[in-house]
Amino acid sequence: MNKAKTIGWIGTGVMGGAMCGHLLAAGHTVSVFSRTREKATDLVQKGATWCASPAAVAAQSGIVFTMVGTPAEVRQVYFSADGIFDGLNKASTMVDMSTTAPSLSLEIAETASQSGSYAVDAPVSGGDIGARDATLSIMAGGKESVVNEVRPLLDCMGKSITYMGPAGSGQHAKLCNQLVVAGTMIGVCEALLYASKAGLDCNQLIAAIRPGAAGCWTLDNLAPRIIKGDDAPGFMVNHFLKDLGIAVQEARALQLDLPGLKLAHKLYLETQKIGHGQSGTQALIHALNEL
Amino acid sequence: MNKAKTIGWIGTGVMGGAMCGHLLAAGHTVSVFSRTREKATDLVQKGATWCASPAAVAAQSGIVFTMVGTPAEVRQVYFSADGIFDGLNKASTMVDMSTTAPSLSLEIAETASQSGSYAVDAPVSGGDIGARDATLSIMAGGKESVVNEVRPLLDCMGKSITYMGPAGSGQHAKLCNQLVVAGTMIGVCEALLYASKAGLDCNQLIAAIRPGAAGCWTLDNLAPRIIKGDDAPGFMVNHFLKDLGIAVQEARALQLDLPGLKLAHKLYLETQKIGHGQSGTQALIHALNEL
Repeated sequence: MNKAKTIGWIGTGVMGGAMCGHLLAAGHTVSVFSRTREKATDLVQKGATWCASPAAVAAQSGIVFTMVGTPAEVRQVYFSADGIFDGLNKASTMVDMSTTAPSLSLEIAETASQSGSYAVDAPVSGGDIGARDATLSIMAGGKESVVNEVRPLLDCMGKSITYMGPAGSGQHAKLCNQLVVAGTMIGVCEALLYASKAGLDCNQLIAAIRPGAAGCWTLDNLAPRIIKGDDAPGFMVNHFLKDLGIAVQEARALQLDLPGLKLAHKLYLETQKIGHGQSGTQALIHALNEL
Repeated sequence: MNKAKTIGWIGTGVMGGAMCGHLLAAGHTVSVFSRTREKATDLVQKGATWCASPAAVAAQSGIVFTMVGTPAEVRQVYFSADGIFDGLNKASTMVDMSTTAPSLSLEIAETASQSGSYAVDAPVSGGDIGARDATLSIMAGGKESVVNEVRPLLDCMGKSITYMGPAGSGQHAKLCNQLVVAGTMIGVCEALLYASKAGLDCNQLIAAIRPGAAGCWTLDNLAPRIIKGDDAPGFMVNHFLKDLGIAVQEARALQLDLPGLKLAHKLYLETQKIGHGQSGTQALIHALNEL
């Protein structure tokens, strides 16, 4: 078996499962591991090989993708006993598509380099739907030649792959993405709250302001859900809060005071606290409504 | 002269001058007044008739448009001696296109009604360029039949005219517009600040995040100016701050706590204080940079 051409995939949740599915559909040989084995059943039926640990996946593969949850989970998958580094072949490439701390991506890249391997951080934007439809935006950090090597695989999962710079840069870009998302979400929720108190028809309001300077993805995609009272997650509050928490820490490390980020972090903690951790990010409106 | 068909225009600044010009270009008879007479010279050369006061304009007109600055200036133009109400013909219509307090629009509408006339509040979004190119978004409040009567005239100035409800509703909608703009601006500025501290290429960042959930008018139109260090106003900090101040007061009157709005108001006061009152709204980045 030419291990350089086989792919490992770790983390088969809603997003990871869909993304790995695109690689299988493109004809790649894939080994998988997931904390919850049942979540990989569908992929195994489609031809993936189940492995008992991240180390076992790494031992089978030339390129290992990870799509897990929190930075703590990323750390465990890479560094624990039975973790990726425990089974890794020389000259392998790891691609972490989770949103995690840039400093952790750097640590993975440095450890990889010490063992003659390579690491890329390639977090994504676009949510469940983007993963399912292979329309993700992917922001990649690492050695440019290595990113170019895995680009054909990333192309199976996303519609836009942007090289952002050295290890950690993909994560930095993703955090910037979340800063903009946080700002637009606060603006849109406050506008809808104001509008409904002032007696405006919120749908008319959207129609009136969307062609101008207020135009944004959140107004087009989430404001209609808010008006309908639909809290279903495109992207979950718990996950967004994880990203905002990472951004707060990184901003502090960069000695940056970002009051909008701090406000968003505080408001989303509140949103989680009132029982909307598993709602979509648009549930921010409920926290604002209770102020 | 059939006064019902002649138009009065008060306020011929950069925006008002361009908007009034479109009415002249469409063949309408227009009387004008402006606090600074020189600012009306161009319109007079194009066929407008100069009047010595708002009252004189009103006496010549069946429909009076106003496009002035602050709520205090709007109040003066309507209610002072020599103001519009001093010269108004019976059954006239007034259309205030300034962004002002919804409560002031209501007061104008009530006064109009007492004297057998009508008032519409029709603030705009789209800035200097929208005024020049007649592509403004116009949000109208007042009696719907009266708004429909003036709609052909509004069509000369804007590409989208939305009826929002009774008097004051146009102003409420405009304030909602500004709430969204404030949120997106904070998000975009904080993202660019973070990106540059983290060593990312800001142009690549925009390319990477604009197709997704971070996509917004501000990212497309103002982020490139921020990167170039271009503070030139599309919309001036001083004017935005006026709007945010009105929004803060109105939110208080509606018993709404809007922390994003309060933050934006505070940050723009800071932007003004460090000498950027006449810069474009993107100059917020300088205030954030000094935190």
